[in-house]
Amino acid sequence: DLQWSELDDRAVDTVRLLAMDAVEKTGNGHPGTAMSLAPVAYTLYQRVLRHDPSDPAWLGRDRFVLSAGHSSLTQYIQLYLAGYNVTLDDLKSFRTWGSNTPGHPEYGHTDGVEVTTGPLGSGFGTAVGMAFAARRVRGLLDPDAAPGESVFDHHVYVIASDGDLQEGVSSEASSVAGTQELGNLIVLWDDNKISIEDDTNIAFTEDTVARYEAYGWHTQVVDFTAGAEYQENPKAIFEALQEARAVTDRPSFIAVRTTIGWPAPNKKNTGAIHGSALGADEVAATKRVLGADPEKQFDVAPEVVAHTQQALERGKRLRAEWEERFRGWRAANPQRAELLDRLSKRELPAGWADALPEFEPSEKGLATRAASGKVINAVAPVLPELWGGSADLAGSNNTTITSEPSFLPEKRSSAMFPGTPYGRTLHFGVREFAAGLIANGIALNGLTRPYAATFLVFSDYQRAAVRLAALQQIPTTFVWTHDSIGLGEDGPTHQPVEHLSTLRAIPGFDVVRPADANETAVAWRTILERNHRPAGIALTRQGIPVFDRSRYGSAEGVARGAYVFAEADGGEPAVLLMASGSELQLAVEAREQLQAEGIAARVVSFPSHEWFDEQSDEYKESVLPSAVRARVSVEAGIAMSWHRFLGDAGRAVSLEHFGASADYKVLYREFGITPEAVVAAAKDSLAAAE
Amino acid sequence: DLQWSELDDRAVDTVRLLAMDAVEKTGNGHPGTAMSLAPVAYTLYQRVLRHDPSDPAWLGRDRFVLSAGHSSLTQYIQLYLAGYNVTLDDLKSFRTWGSNTPGHPEYGHTDGVEVTTGPLGSGFGTAVGMAFAARRVRGLLDPDAAPGESVFDHHVYVIASDGDLQEGVSSEASSVAGTQELGNLIVLWDDNKISIEDDTNIAFTEDTVARYEAYGWHTQVVDFTAGAEYQENPKAIFEALQEARAVTDRPSFIAVRTTIGWPAPNKKNTGAIHGSALGADEVAATKRVLGADPEKQFDVAPEVVAHTQQALERGKRLRAEWEERFRGWRAANPQRAELLDRLSKRELPAGWADALPEFEPSEKGLATRAASGKVINAVAPVLPELWGGSADLAGSNNTTITSEPSFLPEKRSSAMFPGTPYGRTLHFGVREFAAGLIANGIALNGLTRPYAATFLVFSDYQRAAVRLAALQQIPTTFVWTHDSIGLGEDGPTHQPVEHLSTLRAIPGFDVVRPADANETAVAWRTILERNHRPAGIALTRQGIPVFDRSRYGSAEGVARGAYVFAEADGGEPAVLLMASGSELQLAVEAREQLQAEGIAARVVSFPSHEWFDEQSDEYKESVLPSAVRARVSVEAGIAMSWHRFLGDAGRAVSLEHFGASADYKVLYREFGITPEAVVAAAKDSLAAAE
Repeated sequence: DLQWSELDDRAVDTVRLLAMDAVEKTGNGHPGTAMSLAPVAYTLYQRVLRHDPSDPAWLGRDRFVLSAGHSSLTQYIQLYLAGYNVTLDDLKSFRTWGSNTPGHPEYGHTDGVEVTTGPLGSGFGTAVGMAFAARRVRGLLDPDAAPGESVFDHHVYVIASDGDLQEGVSSEASSVAGTQELGNLIVLWDDNKISIEDDTNIAFTEDTVARYEAYGWHTQVVDFTAGAEYQENPKAIFEALQEARAVTDRPSFIAVRTTIGWPAPNKKNTGAIHGSALGADEVAATKRVLGADPEKQFDVAPEVVAHTQQALERGKRLRAEWEERFRGWRAANPQRAELLDRLSKRELPAGWADALPEFEPSEKGLATRAASGKVINAVAPVLPELWGGSADLAGSNNTTITSEPSFLPEKRSSAMFPGTPYGRTLHFGVREFAAGLIANGIALNGLTRPYAATFLVFSDYQRAAVRLAALQQIPTTFVWTHDSIGLGEDGPTHQPVEHLSTLRAIPGFDVVRPADANETAVAWRTILERNHRPAGIALTRQGIPVFDRSRYGSAEGVARGAYVFAEADGGEPAVLLMASGSELQLAVEAREQLQAEGIAARVVSFPSHEWFDEQSDEYKESVLPSAVRARVSVEAGIAMSWHRFLGDAGRAVSLEHFGASADYKVLYREFGITPEAVVAAAKDSLAAAE
Repeated sequence: DLQWSELDDRAVDTVRLLAMDAVEKTGNGHPGTAMSLAPVAYTLYQRVLRHDPSDPAWLGRDRFVLSAGHSSLTQYIQLYLAGYNVTLDDLKSFRTWGSNTPGHPEYGHTDGVEVTTGPLGSGFGTAVGMAFAARRVRGLLDPDAAPGESVFDHHVYVIASDGDLQEGVSSEASSVAGTQELGNLIVLWDDNKISIEDDTNIAFTEDTVARYEAYGWHTQVVDFTAGAEYQENPKAIFEALQEARAVTDRPSFIAVRTTIGWPAPNKKNTGAIHGSALGADEVAATKRVLGADPEKQFDVAPEVVAHTQQALERGKRLRAEWEERFRGWRAANPQRAELLDRLSKRELPAGWADALPEFEPSEKGLATRAASGKVINAVAPVLPELWGGSADLAGSNNTTITSEPSFLPEKRSSAMFPGTPYGRTLHFGVREFAAGLIANGIALNGLTRPYAATFLVFSDYQRAAVRLAALQQIPTTFVWTHDSIGLGEDGPTHQPVEHLSTLRAIPGFDVVRPADANETAVAWRTILERNHRPAGIALTRQGIPVFDRSRYGSAEGVARGAYVFAEADGGEPAVLLMASGSELQLAVEAREQLQAEGIAARVVSFPSHEWFDEQSDEYKESVLPSAVRARVSVEAGIAMSWHRFLGDAGRAVSLEHFGASADYKVLYREFGITPEAVVAAAKDSLAAAE
């Protein structure tokens, strides 16, 4: 049963006071939810969540995700009260330069924040990935423990707002969570019927609880507004959370009917209190309602903090109990403990790269998506941390690890995809955005390395997930096949044109487009070695030659982003031909034609702008000598991202319009992406460089 | 009651034969759904849809949306059978260069195709917009007609696949459709339990019908698999559609349980038949099942076509009846008829631009989002076709037309937003992707001009809708406010950095970022005058100066994309300072400093790269003289899209990393986007240009 004292009531009211004061001091922010959700967040942090404020990275902790990221004070104030490294001064510097308490929670910035949230729906989707990861990790490290008995068992708690549930991605993620029977996922929905446009009656009238039942979730309702007067009920929240924890075969959805901004006498239950300071008068009036001194700001009674910081002792006790069990597990599972230690450091095992395939030269060649599939399957046995799947394009993306079952409850198996709860291949369904967020959630769990696959053009659907991976600097890998008009007949809706440039545009994100099977292997190796940031690998649908590396530069050059693939005869290039992916072969053919005419042409294979940017000036100069101003880029997409390498005299062989539905060879010809076009561009550039 | 003959059965089987043959001939495509949905699509096109194959643009027609765009043959074959301009030869050239039958349906390419589909979920969302438009148009032109009696009343029919319903955007759009009580929207779900990864048990196990009930839809189920053997039942489909049409206060959802690829003896009910040719043996075996000659391809009996092309007569009859009513409406509503004639041509009324506000110069200035709100409200009375709304950011986006009620069923009104079914301001909820698609659907209706608003950073959520607007070349306007780190404290999740460049990257799409209130007015005017393609307008949250145009170039220059805002002293610039939006003021300050040092600096206001690209070479040269190689771009985002204007000697004052949470003035200073930085960059560029 919930222990609750008058000090707890005061602590909850203190949350409201701090929320109002922090927003008032900064002049902007979102006080409303932080005020009305105070008893919910407090009960969660103080009585339910398994966490230790003195060790935010404790392996055995539950995860908390504030999907309603705009209400960051909901989390910051609980972190402060529980004794995390968030101080009263931090609350006073809310939303200011360099502070510990930015406008939205930022992973890696504030202790206790598990995920960067703010873009609505994204926290929810990420939390589903965290719940996936918990199950997979258990399967890797402690598969035989009884349910709930493993040191790796933990829960993922989410606070979601109306906006989170309106966003389509929460529908995607919730449907998947239902299929996956994620018993370790518990979502609290702040059902306050107010969003920025005020009363949600204008835009959100669905029966949300019924919708969650339709997804196969366990649902409950706690209604603070049900009585004659508004009645906050921490006991009901606590009991609902207990019941949700007892349900282990389904995710849980708890609708908490609240009044936003309660108990502000004039602004509660309005859109105004959602995202604006209350103003001095309303703050004072609310303080009077709460029995607090309207003249005082950031006024926390010492006995309240002393009370709430018992969370530190609670955390240490919980962790000590867990540590003992953990030692037992280590002793009983020495090999798995070794694996855990490796995974915890995100280190790759010694010699793992020996498992990578080498591909024989071949004119007929191989699609790089096929090469990628071979790479994934080759390294799968030595890298148990690597797992992932596709948004219903498994066969097209070549992302299935065929030696192991899928990650599925047994009853969700199919003839094509037998599954177990600890399986390895993920099935996202046709849900690209959720796929990206789920992969992010897995990466945030910290122990395994996820990938999510779709067609490159549909990176548009998951762009916000890619951006969040970059912002958080987590090692999510996006596998994007069918990476140009080379996919052919499916036509312009399926043909990426602007996508390579627009993905390169995202700060902190690596785009890699290998030019043959061996480049694909080095690209994957490098991506896996780079454990600190996300990457996307762009792969062809169509077969392309596997180059004979005895004639050309080593594919090892991929790791440096760009390298000399074919030197100009005589070693003094008059023109540089830069190409990525399937267009490298065009540059190679063009070089032959140019050399036949006596024009010294160097071919540079250029799989990754970002990796090249990291190289030394000397290396960059050695690949792209600044004196050589005649340059051509060759890529079956817009040239936007190439201009900085082309310079004034450079010319792009590119595609500046949408594609069409036809055989890909016809498309390349009709759209002028050919060796002849590269030759013409080279001559044009040479003339311009004179 | 449904009239159904043996010829209808043969026609349905002919659909299957043609679907198999078309895919087999090309070697790729999606035969499965085209085969099993044949009786459904046939019943719809031949007996339910109000259309005239001889006049695909008939104003009174129902709309059909194949959200399952991969099954384009489902539509092409019906268009052929019904007598549209789609021939048997067109089916033979399926998915080939220049053909009338591309891989996915393309609006503007094939008669009878109302919307480009393929990206799953997008057709569904667009159809909701079409249903919105039908109601708004009725309200504009025939508000007093009894329900179902107006010449403008029509239905929007959708065929949706499993993939469509898995995509989050269909959830968003369906929830909105429920709130809006769209009685004119009818969705047929092809519930075949197979997607590309085969059995959907691995990823799609929700109770979809219950989900639609939760959205407030009317639901029905027609199950071809319910009996001892598979039984296609056109009569049940027809009756379900009749019942759906009778329900006028809710959208309708009809789950049609089918077996994909039926009756292919070996490949039906498999993922293989979803997206691949059956192979000669299976085609032959299926033809035998259907009693057809396995040796014959594209074999259509003349009596079958004669029978199905009765749709032409049916269409003419329906249209004649409608034309008579339409003449009556015209006679009774001469002013509205005049409006209709104008809207049909997408013409703006004479003198409309006189309504545009002019803004007085002001140092303190005005946020361009506020200026935009004034423009919208100023032109609203003279442009009844202009309407739109926000994804729950109305007050922040300044997109509400305050003189008229919202577009809402009466009972969905709120205190802040009173509504009527024919109202003008849209409330999308926190659903940016659906907002974009709904706006596209409104644009596709053809008579009105929609806008959809959110923060610029959340254009990521709706990118696929922006791309589809560009691909279809329809005049959707995206309003994106909070267009840089200038939004301040909400921090990096809310601050666009790469977005201006990545939106400029979309072919056929215009990005406009006005630099003050008067530029905002000209930007809107120009967007509205350009009725053939979509645009996005990027607007500040923060106040920026309204420039004194007696000192600077006229804001009329906005229409040309870039113009000389402040000439260099003496008229011979040594350096060009190019800036957009809120950064123009920095360039102006930098110019003062440079001129004080004797450096002749020209400031170019550069609101739209795309509009500038359309200008004559002479004009471009007059603004950016090629002899002036010292150039600086100033924009609080990545420089990627500027490099082509900068050239080798140019320098960018840009932001190449994510933002942070703080007051915007602090952010500009800390991130070095200042007049001083522009001055330094100008000197650097001058040195490089030597």
